[in-house]
Amino acid sequence: MKIAIDAMGGDHAPKEIVLGAVQAVKEIPNLEITLIGDEEKIQPLVEDASSINIIHTTEVITSEDEPVRAVRRKKNASMVLMAKEVKEGRAGACISAGNTGALMSAGLFVVGRIKGIERPALSPTLPTIDGKGFLLLDVGANVDAKPQHLVQYAVMGSIYTENVRGIQAPRVGLLNVGTEDGKGNDLTKKAFEQLKQAPVNFVGNVEARDLLNGVADVVVTDGFTGNVALKTVEGTALSMFSMIKDTFMTNWKTKLAASMVKKDLKGLKDQLDYSEYGGAGLFGLASPVIKAHGSSNARAMYNAIKQACHMIEHDVNQTIADTVQNIDFMEEDNE
Amino acid sequence: MKIAIDAMGGDHAPKEIVLGAVQAVKEIPNLEITLIGDEEKIQPLVEDASSINIIHTTEVITSEDEPVRAVRRKKNASMVLMAKEVKEGRAGACISAGNTGALMSAGLFVVGRIKGIERPALSPTLPTIDGKGFLLLDVGANVDAKPQHLVQYAVMGSIYTENVRGIQAPRVGLLNVGTEDGKGNDLTKKAFEQLKQAPVNFVGNVEARDLLNGVADVVVTDGFTGNVALKTVEGTALSMFSMIKDTFMTNWKTKLAASMVKKDLKGLKDQLDYSEYGGAGLFGLASPVIKAHGSSNARAMYNAIKQACHMIEHDVNQTIADTVQNIDFMEEDNE
Repeated sequence: MKIAIDAMGGDHAPKEIVLGAVQAVKEIPNLEITLIGDEEKIQPLVEDASSINIIHTTEVITSEDEPVRAVRRKKNASMVLMAKEVKEGRAGACISAGNTGALMSAGLFVVGRIKGIERPALSPTLPTIDGKGFLLLDVGANVDAKPQHLVQYAVMGSIYTENVRGIQAPRVGLLNVGTEDGKGNDLTKKAFEQLKQAPVNFVGNVEARDLLNGVADVVVTDGFTGNVALKTVEGTALSMFSMIKDTFMTNWKTKLAASMVKKDLKGLKDQLDYSEYGGAGLFGLASPVIKAHGSSNARAMYNAIKQACHMIEHDVNQTIADTVQNIDFMEEDNE
Repeated sequence: MKIAIDAMGGDHAPKEIVLGAVQAVKEIPNLEITLIGDEEKIQPLVEDASSINIIHTTEVITSEDEPVRAVRRKKNASMVLMAKEVKEGRAGACISAGNTGALMSAGLFVVGRIKGIERPALSPTLPTIDGKGFLLLDVGANVDAKPQHLVQYAVMGSIYTENVRGIQAPRVGLLNVGTEDGKGNDLTKKAFEQLKQAPVNFVGNVEARDLLNGVADVVVTDGFTGNVALKTVEGTALSMFSMIKDTFMTNWKTKLAASMVKKDLKGLKDQLDYSEYGGAGLFGLASPVIKAHGSSNARAMYNAIKQACHMIEHDVNQTIADTVQNIDFMEEDNE
């Protein structure tokens, strides 16, 4: 298995990215990694890992870059060269913790789509209280989605969840404003009807309130709503941790209590840390492309690499391609 | 001031509803309340409160009723009679903790809209970590909103926030997938341009991640997205409280710590309890109509009554009516 990694993307690049790669080649058999970035900075961190090679470049796409323009103009950027490794068959998957929009552009323009998938979906796995997690897609690749896009997300999400996460007949829910049939806006009402016909285990509408309770294994929604839901979970969790911290600093008694539960509360924070579940897949592209969190440390990068390996081993993208070929996705206008 | 209250709506009706009303007439000068519902159940709870009168009816709209049909057919339901009190000028505002959809229907069909407002907005105040809270609208009255609706929400939300919450030139944010200008889906891109021209203190796009940090005093969004954001905040907070509880039950040390911070953590829960901010206003109707939370206790009902009094005292609905008369809301098709 060969994986190409943008060594210069993310808040802690290249150090944590490289350390994650070094750990991965040590622990995962038959894995070869190509790191793309500044050789001078990367080489000292690689040590003697023989399964890692480096493609040198100093050009980088930053978080300030305008995504589409950056991918078009910075032809030697680490992220663009990474995508080319996949496109030209020298790697089976690629990972970047850099600019999300640019990675989506590089995915679309360099790696290319699976035939039959109109829009790729950015698909993170979010935590649930039972620790199993659920896949949410799309969280922002496509902010003006059509009903058939949501059906394509359901198919891709199911195949990924079944093959990589090992959940049989994953429950697919449609994010909506109520659980009853017939609820929703124009988009979800139409998507609901199409999802009933789709080759997935559709369990109907799910409400945002129940997401972290594990109401479904795969939750589909348009990229705008998914982005808001994802960021609301993050924001609420962070606000609560900050309020808990303040509560514990109230007086000597609360401070003492804090010292007694510090380790346990750290565990709670880890439980909500979705880098444990790997990165967000960009499903619908010809090969696995994974967006690792911008703040990825070595452990998060290692998890994203494991995830990419699973996607290659289980041939997820080929299964998606074969499956969508046999589905007649209803165009909105045909209804 | 006269306020009509649906005594039969909500999980704890009529008891908690009536107790909240009794407290309100004791504490708020010149307040008269009309309770609508089963006199036999209400009367014993009212004691000798002379400022409370009762309109007897046994018909009730339940949470299982289909909203529009229920309002049309159950002509003597407590909620419908409540709305009629307002419509026919015998009360200046009304409050129900019952079926949200039915209250929206009763608002539209019985109370009626303000001229110039195309769609009313369901508008709760959500907590922030600094304790000030922010107004989110719409959270579900109108799931397929047009750009000009969001502008109308901004105007209504600003007037309410300035007059009732006492915040001068409230900061109005547009909920979006990024803070930069030009971000978003078709709806938010168009709304952004119109909001720049609107007579409000528009501070641009805001992200869901920053909502509880108090990034704006008024946040406008379509009813679908707002509903998802609201329920995601609720769901994440509840999940975290449940996880914290589990963490504290881990062993004797954590249990001891829990007993030491119990009171303080209760304070944290209260801080996140948005019934403290009153109910959700149905802005855009001819008179103040307030949706109290379904699980309202006497305290929540009391807060909703105070809120209704403020709205009457500050003539919020007339100010909205006067303001929208002078605005040329751009229709989507004219763009």
